[in-house]
This record gives sequence, structure tokens and C-alpha cells, in this order.
Amino acid sequence: MAATINILGIAGSLRKDSLNRSLLRAAVELAPEGMAITTFDLLEVPLYNGDVEADGDPEGVARFKQAIREADGVLMVTPEYNHGVPGVMKNAVDWASRPPRTAALTGKPVALMGASPGITGTARGQSQLRQAFEFTNSYCMPQPEVLVFSALDKFDASGNLTDERTRGNVTKFLVAFEAWVRRFV
Amino acid sequence: MAATINILGIAGSLRKDSLNRSLLRAAVELAPEGMAITTFDLLEVPLYNGDVEADGDPEGVARFKQAIREADGVLMVTPEYNHGVPGVMKNAVDWASRPPRTAALTGKPVALMGASPGITGTARGQSQLRQAFEFTNSYCMPQPEVLVFSALDKFDASGNLTDERTRGNVTKFLVAFEAWVRRFV
Amino acid sequence: MAATINILGIAGSLRKDSLNRSLLRAAVELAPEGMAITTFDLLEVPLYNGDVEADGDPEGVARFKQAIREADGVLMVTPEYNHGVPGVMKNAVDWASRPPRTAALTGKPVALMGASPGITGTARGQSQLRQAFEFTNSYCMPQPEVLVFSALDKFDASGNLTDERTRGNVTKFLVAFEAWVRRFV
Amino acid sequence: MAATINILGIAGSLRKDSLNRSLLRAAVELAPEGMAITTFDLLEVPLYNGDVEADGDPEGVARFKQAIREADGVLMVTPEYNHGVPGVMKNAVDWASRPPRTAALTGKPVALMGASPGITGTARGQSQLRQAFEFTNSYCMPQPEVLVFSALDKFDASGNLTDERTRGNVTKFLVAFEAWVRRFV
Repeated sequence: MAATINILGIAGSLRKDSLNRSLLRAAVELAPEGMAITTFDLLEVPLYNGDVEADGDPEGVARFKQAIREADGVLMVTPEYNHGVPGVMKNAVDWASRPPRTAALTGKPVALMGASPGITGTARGQSQLRQAFEFTNSYCMPQPEVLVFSALDKFDASGNLTDERTRGNVTKFLVAFEAWVRRFV
Repeated sequence: MAATINILGIAGSLRKDSLNRSLLRAAVELAPEGMAITTFDLLEVPLYNGDVEADGDPEGVARFKQAIREADGVLMVTPEYNHGVPGVMKNAVDWASRPPRTAALTGKPVALMGASPGITGTARGQSQLRQAFEFTNSYCMPQPEVLVFSALDKFDASGNLTDERTRGNVTKFLVAFEAWVRRFV
Repeated sequence: MAATINILGIAGSLRKDSLNRSLLRAAVELAPEGMAITTFDLLEVPLYNGDVEADGDPEGVARFKQAIREADGVLMVTPEYNHGVPGVMKNAVDWASRPPRTAALTGKPVALMGASPGITGTARGQSQLRQAFEFTNSYCMPQPEVLVFSALDKFDASGNLTDERTRGNVTKFLVAFEAWVRRFV
Repeated sequence: MAATINILGIAGSLRKDSLNRSLLRAAVELAPEGMAITTFDLLEVPLYNGDVEADGDPEGVARFKQAIREADGVLMVTPEYNHGVPGVMKNAVDWASRPPRTAALTGKPVALMGASPGITGTARGQSQLRQAFEFTNSYCMPQPEVLVFSALDKFDASGNLTDERTRGNVTKFLVAFEAWVRRFV
């Protein structure tokens, strides 16, 4: 078994100062000893278009799919928009579910986290996103959950996760994810 | 009451020959006498990015939001990708739910149709998309449904809807949608 | 237009001291002048069984369906169990969606509220329950929402809703529901 | 590793001649050599009531939870009612998610199948039911799926699954489920 598992982390918001990018940065920092988290910026991934795909994956998409293939697991940090998964995040999954070759997400362990300014902490967004992994045959960790509610109170002005309880929850989540990934690799 | 109600129709696929673009064209053709359907091409709508939005809506987004505001109702024709709403379609809704001013979708009657090559006819994709309209406070018609399953058998090579039963279903759906919109305008 | 609209209120928990029964009682008390809320206790409604139904609706089911038919709208106050709608609540909807005669719920305005001890305030439970009304062709009010999170802090030991902000939210919700129902009756 | 894994099979309909009971019987018959499926009849499980539970689990519930604990995995065969999971099925999960002791479903491999007379083959019902297992921390197999659409054509008058293609799909599904369970036991 590998000494270190490699996780690809992606945030479902393109905004530079987004809460979910900040939460992903916190995860990178809090990763347990046996896990390394590398991030991929969805700014590289255009809207899915079957006509474009027919001419070959755009460069950013090819890099994204390759990064998923090379990872032992994928960590998705997602906002909730309009009671659901953001288009930006779902669009990335839609590309990653496509040929050529077996979909990059097939058989890949996945975990979800999310942060929102409101009370539900992206509960509905995560529920929708999770449904995609039934289809892609990915292994989405059921528990624990990280639902960072009232998130504006939990990060400082530089986007550092300062809330101790949330830091503890993220740490426990990542330890569980390491064990989850090791079941499958 | 207006002699004719104006509906904005959008398809959730960017591919030129997509089944759902073809289904939207069939709806334009089959619209009842009291309804006119104008289409808007989501190729104009980029991925949602809060940093971009902070500098003002991109031109395509501004046009999209204006087209929704001017319409009496919105018809969304959506594929299902990965057991859910396509990122392309959700992304358009994400933009349309945003300020400035009241969201374009607020208080707007909406109806959903969809076509898929498989057996479920976009059932899961429609269920997810529908959840967005709780948040935007749009009025999404509950019944009837148009779930065009085995859709490759129902359009000819030029993308014309040739299946008589489906044409009848779309016609009944649009008649019901006209009555639904007239409840609210 | 009727001076008073009659709403049937049901709680999706059978436990006597449940938070959601308490929330329903608060709604009865806070109903605006033009609305009267009568409650129906789901203890009367057995598990759905098609063999039983074939011999005629059990007495409690017949009363439940009749109470829905006589109401101008239905208010459902639901817990969330296991990230979804409780079996108890969904079971009642399953009966109410059945013949003989047109389903009692068809064309009926509906609104949802919920209370939970945790942070999400039944968000996921309400999202699932709402999907049923697509099928029954009921008119489920999209906004505002009442998601009573951390609910143990908002009721006193006798089950009275004492949190002023939540009382205000319930009041606004019921005023909006009155207007919603009057669109359809 | 055990020569045979023991699966508990439950059908989400109480009707004796239900399609989903018939589908469960087909699964019992088609189980691969390394798997034995025992069934539990949900007629024994009453509606969930926290006041009843406070006095101890009813006998049928205690037997149900014990049967889950003793099984290596659970196979749920579910109808779809009103675009969602039937109350009968969700109610059984609600009981199985409760103390005393760790929930019977915790860490248990689960798989879902379903049959419906219509076109979607319980797609939406399965999606809702699946969400429960996030909370219970059960391991719900993502693929393959068994969505038996137009099910009245696929069973004979005695409820035997006669459609060869569906029999093949069920067989492949059970082989995959055996491998899925063996990952976790």
C-alpha cells in the first residue's frame, strides 16, 4: 500500500475569494500525513459542448481528466446555488464522465464538502452532486459530512479557516476519506 | 388578457444536432395559437463567475436576463447527464437567478421538457432542475410531463419530431402551459 | 372570494411531543385573519397496502382524503429523517394520491414547513417531499421557506414556539400561503 | 472469506402480487453461487412512532433490525410512488436507522432494484431512497442499475420474471453486488 495517497481537490466556484476555494485551501493544509491534496482550477474547463468534444477534448479538459486519472481519489468542495449543485461544478463532472476511454471518474473514490453563508451548509447542493456518482460508478464517501454553515463567520479576511470546530471537522473528514480511499486502491 | 403570450424557449445542450434542440424546435412549431415561442441560444452564456459578474454582466448574460424579463414564461428543454441536470443548463439558471434587480426568474412561470436516448426520458434531470425554481420563486408547472425516452427513434435524420404520439404529448403540454402561464400574468 | 380559506394542516411525526407537531400548533395560532387551519392526525392513516385498498379505503384514510378534498389548501409540517422525507409523511401522500375519483391532492395548493434539531432545518426532507407534488399535480408554494434549524432552542418545554424571529417567519409564510391559495381557488 | 455471503432482501410494497415482490423472488432464484438471499416481509414493520419506540422496539421491528445485523448486505427492491420512494419503504429504513446500539444499517453494503409499469423503471424512487444511505453511512452500490420499466410485460401471470434480457440484467447486477459486498465484509 502506498505510503501517501494522492487526492485531486477541486472547488466549484470560479470566484478568487470564494468560501469554497478557501475551504479547499484549508483541506490542503489539514490533510493527514498519509494524504497529499493537489488542486485543479476549474477556470480551465469550458462549458461542455458535444461538437467541441467531437474535435478532441479542449486542452484544459484533457488536463482535468488526466489529473483525475492520476489521482487516487477526488475531493469536491462545492457551493450550493438555487437549492442545487452549481452549474460550474456539474459541468466539470459532465466532462469527466465522458469518453474517450473509460470515464476518468469510473471506480474513483470521491468525497464532498461545502460551505455556504446560510444555514444549510450546501446540504441540497451536495445531495444533487452525489447523484452523479451513481452514474459514473464512483465511490462517494457517505459519512462524515462537512456542511460549513454561516461560513462568513468561520474564515478570516484572508480566507483562512479560523473556526476551531470546523477545522476539527475537516480534519476528521480527511482522516475518514483517507481510510475510504485505501479501501479501493 | 393578452391575445398571445410570449414564451422564451431554451435548450440545455450546446451541440447543434442535439435531441433537445430538436425537441425545442418541435415545440416552436407545435405552439398553440395563443402562444409564441422565441428561442435563446445558451452558447451566448459563459460559465458563472462572481468576479466577472462584479464588473457587470457579460453581454450574452445581459441579453439572456433581458429575454427572460420580457417573456411571460420560460420553457426549458433539458437533457439528463449523469443522473442530473446538465451543467450547461444549471449554469444558465444560476446566472438568471442573480441580481442586479430582482432575479429575472422571480415570479416567472416555467415548464420543463426533455429527451434522452435511454429509457428514463430525463426524469432525474428534470427533478433536479425543478428544485432550482423553489429558490428562484418561479412557478414550475407540475403536470403534464414530457419525458421523451428512446428519443433517437422519434426524430428523423434532420431532427424533425416525427413520432405522432410524442407530437401529441408536446401539443397537450403546450396547451396546458398556456393555461398555466395565464394564471399568473 | 371566500372571506376565509380553510387549510388542512398535517404533521409528519406521530410522536406526541414532536417539534413538528409543535410547529403546526404554532401555525394554527399564527394564521392570518383570512385563514383557518384545521389539523388532521396521521395516527389515523395506516401503511399503504394495495390489497387493503382493493377492499375499500380504511376509515382513517377515507377521512383523510375527505379532509383534503374539503380544504382549500394543505399545509404539511415535516421532519427530515435520513436526509429525506419521513416514511410517515410520504405514506400519507401516497394514500392521498390514489383513486377512487380524482386524487384528493390534484390541483390543490400545498405549502411545506419543517423543524429539526440540527442545522439544516429539514431542507433535504422538504426537497424530497416537494417532488411528490409534481406527480399529484398539486401547486406547491416555492417561497418563502420555513426551515426551523436548532429547533430545540426555539420551543419551550410545553412545545410553544417562543423564538420571536421564527414566529415572524411563520407569520410571513402563512400570509404568503393565503395569497398563494387565493390564486387557485 | 466466507464461502457464501448472506443478503437480506426486502420489497417496498405490501401488496401480495406486487411487481417488486415478484422481482425480489426472481433475485432469490437468480442469486449467484456465492450468495444466498433471505427475504423479510415489511408487513411486520409498523409506522415509525417515537413514543412507541421509547417503550422498546415492536417485535417486528426488532426482528427486522436483527435480520439486517445478521446479513452481510441488504437488497432493497422498491416501487416508485409519486416520483419518490414509497412511504412503506422509507418507513422501514427510518426504523433501521434508529438506536438502540449503532444503527443496523451502519457500514452495511446495500443495493437497489425496482420495477414499474411505466417508462422510468423507478429511477426517481431509487434516487430518493439512495440519499438515505448517506446518512446511515451504508455503502450503496452505484452501478449497475436495475430499472425494470414496462414491467407488466416482463412477468407472467404467476409473477415469474420471464423477460430474458431482464433476467440477464438481474443476474449481472447480483454478481456485481456479490463483489461489492466482499469489498466490505
